[in-house]
Amino acid sequence: MRVGNEQFTVTMRTPGADFDLVRGLLLTEGLIETNRDIGRLRYCDTDDPGVSDSNIVNVTLARAPLSTRRWQRTLLASSSCGLCGQAAIDALRLEVAPVPDTHALPADVLLSLPALLRERQPLFAQTGGLHAVGLFSAGGECLCVFEDIGRHNATDKAIGFGVAQGWLPWNRAHAPLILLVSGRASFEITQKALVARIPLVCAVSAASTLAADLADANNQTLIGFLRDANMTIYTHPERIAGADSPHAFAP
Amino acid sequence: MRVGNEQFTVTMRTPGADFDLVRGLLLTEGLIETNRDIGRLRYCDTDDPGVSDSNIVNVTLARAPLSTRRWQRTLLASSSCGLCGQAAIDALRLEVAPVPDTHALPADVLLSLPALLRERQPLFAQTGGLHAVGLFSAGGECLCVFEDIGRHNATDKAIGFGVAQGWLPWNRAHAPLILLVSGRASFEITQKALVARIPLVCAVSAASTLAADLADANNQTLIGFLRDANMTIYTHPERIAGADSPHAFAP
Repeated sequence: MRVGNEQFTVTMRTPGADFDLVRGLLLTEGLIETNRDIGRLRYCDTDDPGVSDSNIVNVTLARAPLSTRRWQRTLLASSSCGLCGQAAIDALRLEVAPVPDTHALPADVLLSLPALLRERQPLFAQTGGLHAVGLFSAGGECLCVFEDIGRHNATDKAIGFGVAQGWLPWNRAHAPLILLVSGRASFEITQKALVARIPLVCAVSAASTLAADLADANNQTLIGFLRDANMTIYTHPERIAGADSPHAFAP
Repeated sequence: MRVGNEQFTVTMRTPGADFDLVRGLLLTEGLIETNRDIGRLRYCDTDDPGVSDSNIVNVTLARAPLSTRRWQRTLLASSSCGLCGQAAIDALRLEVAPVPDTHALPADVLLSLPALLRERQPLFAQTGGLHAVGLFSAGGECLCVFEDIGRHNATDKAIGFGVAQGWLPWNRAHAPLILLVSGRASFEITQKALVARIPLVCAVSAASTLAADLADANNQTLIGFLRDANMTIYTHPERIAGADSPHAFAP
């Protein structure tokens, strides 16, 4: 991925939805605020015989990146995990406000989502080896699902699709969106959802302690083990009707 | 992780077995050939109030690192995934020979391993969120299991334990060892097993295409979906008695 013809990052991804992946990265890495900040996306020509043209995307921004500082921090973090634990949460605090309060959703809406995700995982059905991430409406409608061998790529693809549709970053003028990941909720996924202003993050598997600490500090509802008519609510259970405190919840 | 007081790498890991993690990284990143190449391992003192002393390990090598070139390549790869696909397999080829042939094992031995791994995952039982990696003898004996939030860390811990015991890198003077991972077999995990000369790599979940290509090129037997009395043999089925070709295998 290049920005203004300069190398920004390299990721090993499952081909497909590459422009959504790039849009997602542009938002979650803090280079844009909305889709309008993106000028043009195109595959690059390359003279390197070992690299396919369709593996390089160049982005032209409609205006200068918002935050060179954040960009630099991100690259540092990915190369050496320079920020860990509470320091990472504190650093984000300076850049991103907590998400707003939202109305509580019926637990049944959330419990219906994993089956909707699973129906839209053709590559998983074929290989058993890919992650999936979807966006859902507060009413439980499946808005998009993306599969990728990397869960962070799948997250960026889903968020990037939401950016292209104008749904993300989410704001209170619209009903809340829900992000559902087929595996674990990591710190990075929760951070990406935070930057996209997504108030509900759900995972079919566990959440890490650091993900839960980040969600707790930023008013995000983080739910794990969403399967088999159960869920574990790690943070901000007030968004789930009938759930009074963080706990394993089977309505 | 520091080598000779210079920063080598940073990883976000589950605390515990830190010296095994370091021994594993020293081998899999190509800095040592055997445990005898390691001089001293110790936690560092630090004046940084944000960093616990027990989060930094300094290694003194008993002799100069084998391969500065390889070290540099590794750091490049981790910061930008500079080598992808076939290029990565070709690059490894220059540095590591294929593993030797071994006698075929009964499929029943392999099928018994996941239950032995599962018994030794107390942190998974508590959280549902950690990977586990174990080493097993050709007779199906569990030699060690390590849990970590990162599957690559768990792999390095298991390999590092094998290094400390003198079992790894494996050679033909001993019966073959088996590596079993609780999740997917990635390219990186297969690469680590290759450097440790482990001829059989098994995963409870899927293997990636790139992992299978690497294993195929290096005479490693790669098995996925090892669960429920079944397995998928991706490469070199001749090590499994009764399996004639790569296929889903239920004896």
